[in-house]
Amino acid sequence: MTDTTKYLESNKDRFLQELIDLLKIPSVSTDASFKGDILKAADFLKKKLEEAGADKVEVCETGGYPIVYGEKIIDENLPTVLVYGHYDVQPADPLELWDSPPFEPVVKDGTVIARGSADDKGQVYMHVKAFEAMMQTDSLACNIKFMIEGEEEVGSDSLGPFLEANKEKLKADVVLVSDTAMLSNDTPSLTMGLRGLSYMEVEVTGPNRDLHSGIYGGAVANPINVLCKMIASLTDDNNRITIPGFYDNVNDLTPEERIGLNSAPFDEKEYTEDLGINEVHGEKGFTTLERGSIRPTLDVNGIWGGYTQPGAKTVLPSKAYAKISMRLVPNQTSKEITDKFTRHFNNIAPDYVKVKVIPHHGGEPAVTPIDSVAYRAAEMAMEEAFGKKPIPMRGGGSIPIVSLFEKTLGLKTILMGFGLDSNKIHSPNENYGLFNYYKGIETIPLFYKHFAELSK
Amino acid sequence: MTDTTKYLESNKDRFLQELIDLLKIPSVSTDASFKGDILKAADFLKKKLEEAGADKVEVCETGGYPIVYGEKIIDENLPTVLVYGHYDVQPADPLELWDSPPFEPVVKDGTVIARGSADDKGQVYMHVKAFEAMMQTDSLACNIKFMIEGEEEVGSDSLGPFLEANKEKLKADVVLVSDTAMLSNDTPSLTMGLRGLSYMEVEVTGPNRDLHSGIYGGAVANPINVLCKMIASLTDDNNRITIPGFYDNVNDLTPEERIGLNSAPFDEKEYTEDLGINEVHGEKGFTTLERGSIRPTLDVNGIWGGYTQPGAKTVLPSKAYAKISMRLVPNQTSKEITDKFTRHFNNIAPDYVKVKVIPHHGGEPAVTPIDSVAYRAAEMAMEEAFGKKPIPMRGGGSIPIVSLFEKTLGLKTILMGFGLDSNKIHSPNENYGLFNYYKGIETIPLFYKHFAELSK
Repeated sequence: MTDTTKYLESNKDRFLQELIDLLKIPSVSTDASFKGDILKAADFLKKKLEEAGADKVEVCETGGYPIVYGEKIIDENLPTVLVYGHYDVQPADPLELWDSPPFEPVVKDGTVIARGSADDKGQVYMHVKAFEAMMQTDSLACNIKFMIEGEEEVGSDSLGPFLEANKEKLKADVVLVSDTAMLSNDTPSLTMGLRGLSYMEVEVTGPNRDLHSGIYGGAVANPINVLCKMIASLTDDNNRITIPGFYDNVNDLTPEERIGLNSAPFDEKEYTEDLGINEVHGEKGFTTLERGSIRPTLDVNGIWGGYTQPGAKTVLPSKAYAKISMRLVPNQTSKEITDKFTRHFNNIAPDYVKVKVIPHHGGEPAVTPIDSVAYRAAEMAMEEAFGKKPIPMRGGGSIPIVSLFEKTLGLKTILMGFGLDSNKIHSPNENYGLFNYYKGIETIPLFYKHFAELSK
Repeated sequence: MTDTTKYLESNKDRFLQELIDLLKIPSVSTDASFKGDILKAADFLKKKLEEAGADKVEVCETGGYPIVYGEKIIDENLPTVLVYGHYDVQPADPLELWDSPPFEPVVKDGTVIARGSADDKGQVYMHVKAFEAMMQTDSLACNIKFMIEGEEEVGSDSLGPFLEANKEKLKADVVLVSDTAMLSNDTPSLTMGLRGLSYMEVEVTGPNRDLHSGIYGGAVANPINVLCKMIASLTDDNNRITIPGFYDNVNDLTPEERIGLNSAPFDEKEYTEDLGINEVHGEKGFTTLERGSIRPTLDVNGIWGGYTQPGAKTVLPSKAYAKISMRLVPNQTSKEITDKFTRHFNNIAPDYVKVKVIPHHGGEPAVTPIDSVAYRAAEMAMEEAFGKKPIPMRGGGSIPIVSLFEKTLGLKTILMGFGLDSNKIHSPNENYGLFNYYKGIETIPLFYKHFAELSK
């Protein structure tokens, strides 16, 4: 047992209690009414980084929500690791589907249940506690810099300018992030690829006011019916996206790569049972593992229009709205796809309605080389902690900042996440396993050890 | 000038003020939180009927909201007219689109603006004041019975049982209703046909919980995308409804009937400009007048699912919902169409989702003979008041009670409405013209006069 593991063992309860305190802060970034809590979460992390022994800790102002910075430079000649994470969380709604209030953490069946427990407070806080453990046991093997933002769930708008303005201060050899999931607790994995994102809001306007569907129905186009037809036309019978040029830049995997990807343990029966669906559904010619990672998608994330209250109202509404997002794979860019979507959606709009497309945030897809020193250090750390070599995998989600770090700081990112797909992130009853929390705190110091050694 | 008209002239302001007092009561029947106001509106009418000189006035309890009854039997040998109307109103939302609060009536540009001003409070109250005028001038020419309900906007569920239980009490020669519109103030018209209604709520369920669209997107069916495809498939490229057997019982008009119907004054340019649309849109092969009156329709009245708040949330939702209604024409029945819709919607549901169809209220289409004594009395009354013979027309809306009166009481209904399509009923800024309000009060006594004479 390493010194840091011993330290972890004797501080487990406090480490958990501190995470619970952080989870109690409803730092929802997409809704301005939570601004005060966002700042409270930032101050909480500042305080904890200072207590753990970080220097130059500050809550850095940005154009949006602040970024918490802190560092420990022990030796200019040692490699430097830039730890990134985010303290903001997704909205908690629909509230009624939570078994316990989203911001009153409950520890149950070996997990802590709360919004943000896995995405990303639980995972970023592992790094704060691992840092404390290394400091207390005098075993920190690299220089370390923390950068924890509060706008990840809304597109990290302030991060780019912050990186541009602080290139010197953020100088490092690699970025380390825990904001992804492993295949399972028995099958550790490292994410080497991510999908990007292009997210829009569309508005379809029919008549200039809500109308009586009896008097006007049948004679005037109904914007909801029209929006449904437009959305329906965006995917074909094989579930391929019909936007012209959508697949132009998708780089297809080699047969070998596909075999490797599909070798990951996956039980479709378990999968469908867990989700309560009769069968999976996706792009023809690809497996569920592929559909969720290496293929682009188009999902309606929200739709609304007309009368949505209890009872019946015979209205022919003036407007209908939808939020539509597309997941992107390497070589596609969010700008390219946003442009293609916007052009196409306007092209297919019939003359009897007006259409508006408002782009929300986007993110770029990314792949990290598995032959790099940093990747191997992460691999060795996980193998040592889990007793098994982690499987390199492609993630379905987006961490836009990965490509941002590459572009702005010229740094590769290691996605050493300890979550599970069953963590219900972005959903009611989000949870994070205590096993995963503690295992992460145990693994992280090993990464620093191996990264320092391999960098010699 | 008749005595009743003189009486009207000298009481105009009070008649308007009383209507405004009635419009101030937010008697929204679809939302239980307004129950108190519903009862308040019923009591208001009871009081006014008594003041006007009605006998046996009572607020009759039902399984739902009460029905206000009152009568004046002057001579068993004279014909009896049963006046029907409703004191409940549609919900006022979307509130933000009203120029003035929906339940704080404003008189502007010769109209009174408030929810319910035209549908139906303003029109039913004309009958109360016309009754008062006839009583005060001792010119009531027929026996009269009032029956004013509070559930018309939610399907008149209690009316059927009430009619069944009170056949004797409601004995009459004809039903007189003002709850429809005229072609224009210069072109009076009488509605001789109405569309029926079949209204459902549908629910599509995908996964058993909201999912992260990054992790599951592309691999699991999204219920919103699926609902859009299902709704889109309900109408074809010619805007015909694809539900099997949907048109089986539609009785098509003769070429002569179609020519008559299309002879009504209609300016498409004015129509599209008023609605702010570039072009009309409907079933191929029919005119706008036909699409809005003699053809069945399918409209989505509301749709919702996923994240609908400001900002972006990358969720793959568990459920999506829609409210869908169909307007029916003579020979179709709401039960027939509700069954056909339900069967079809379940049939087209893919295996990877679950579908639920919940029928809301329905209403039957109806046609009234224009050669009946009552119709001719209404025609003569309008011609005398407007100086022009009214055009017989088919209305697009539904007044389910018309077929109910025929079935239960064996009575024909005269639809002598004084509204206009521009009244924005069921929409923000609903309004009713003062000209129409006073012209109605002037016309109604003439109906009684002619009906009594023609019935001799």
